[in-house]
Amino acid sequence: MTSTNDGSDLSSRIDLLLRQVQDFPEPGVLFRDITPLLADGPAFAETIEAIAATATTPVDLVVGIESRGFLLAAPVATALGVGLALVRKAGKLPGPTVSESYTLEYGTATVEVHPFTVPSGSRVLVVDDVLATGGTAAASVRLLERCGAQIVQLTFLIELLDLHGRAKLPDVPTTALLALA
Amino acid sequence: MTSTNDGSDLSSRIDLLLRQVQDFPEPGVLFRDITPLLADGPAFAETIEAIAATATTPVDLVVGIESRGFLLAAPVATALGVGLALVRKAGKLPGPTVSESYTLEYGTATVEVHPFTVPSGSRVLVVDDVLATGGTAAASVRLLERCGAQIVQLTFLIELLDLHGRAKLPDVPTTALLALA
Repeated sequence: MTSTNDGSDLSSRIDLLLRQVQDFPEPGVLFRDITPLLADGPAFAETIEAIAATATTPVDLVVGIESRGFLLAAPVATALGVGLALVRKAGKLPGPTVSESYTLEYGTATVEVHPFTVPSGSRVLVVDDVLATGGTAAASVRLLERCGAQIVQLTFLIELLDLHGRAKLPDVPTTALLALA
Repeated sequence: MTSTNDGSDLSSRIDLLLRQVQDFPEPGVLFRDITPLLADGPAFAETIEAIAATATTPVDLVVGIESRGFLLAAPVATALGVGLALVRKAGKLPGPTVSESYTLEYGTATVEVHPFTVPSGSRVLVVDDVLATGGTAAASVRLLERCGAQIVQLTFLIELLDLHGRAKLPDVPTTALLALA
């Protein structure tokens, strides 16, 4: 395959490097395993550059969403020369934290951040691996806005179009490198 | 503070950016919170460069240990232009995996890797945030060696000297950017 570095070429390379796993982590779910993409040095580097390039205005901070989001957000932060803040599941960050809960199909989940890592007025790029129903992303946006951050961009590696997660993110510029039906 | 980029200067900057949290995640533990370091763009970038520079011979692959190790290993992989493989806790990676169990003070823990991300003969740099008792690191080394990898370097951000973790890693070159008594 030629490496023209245009977006569509990168999308197809990413698609080829994802491993589909049926019924993980639970029955009925088709899981997209990104580990073959991470293990491919050139494709991983190009993916990080492409995510960094989605921040078309300057950002002060990259935020990664636990835990696969960390794998993308951390190198994006160093590529942009800015710091990294973490949105984690409840109980993982020692206090003080601010938290936001959201509804899942069965029950609720909570995400947390250290407010001292998100200065008020920060211009933020938020990164995660998959946009599915959008619940985690929307809660993360609310959390960061409560810290006074301005979310300038929300970027996913993969968007699962059938789950309509984008509908939960009406006010934030949202991009995915690969959209899957 | 001047930025001479020599090792000792970076060690003291890292030390100043760690937040000590008493009794987290359980009573009696003094937790070193790395989130202020990650949130400081220049210090984070310099830390990643320093970890990458501990691989004094070429490596084919960087391995990150879940989950704070991911935050360091991912940008080290892109800095070195190589792929990233993940050592995760049991059940996080969809099969096929290889796994290694190890003894904790109370009970056991298991780490897993996708063998297809660690080609036999790979020269590997393993990265994690903290070397404590060394149990996770030693199990990760055994796991990667079972995949046919050659561990050329094991690098930690922090080494807790009182816990003597290095004694469990006699055959692997081991470095930490900051050693704490």
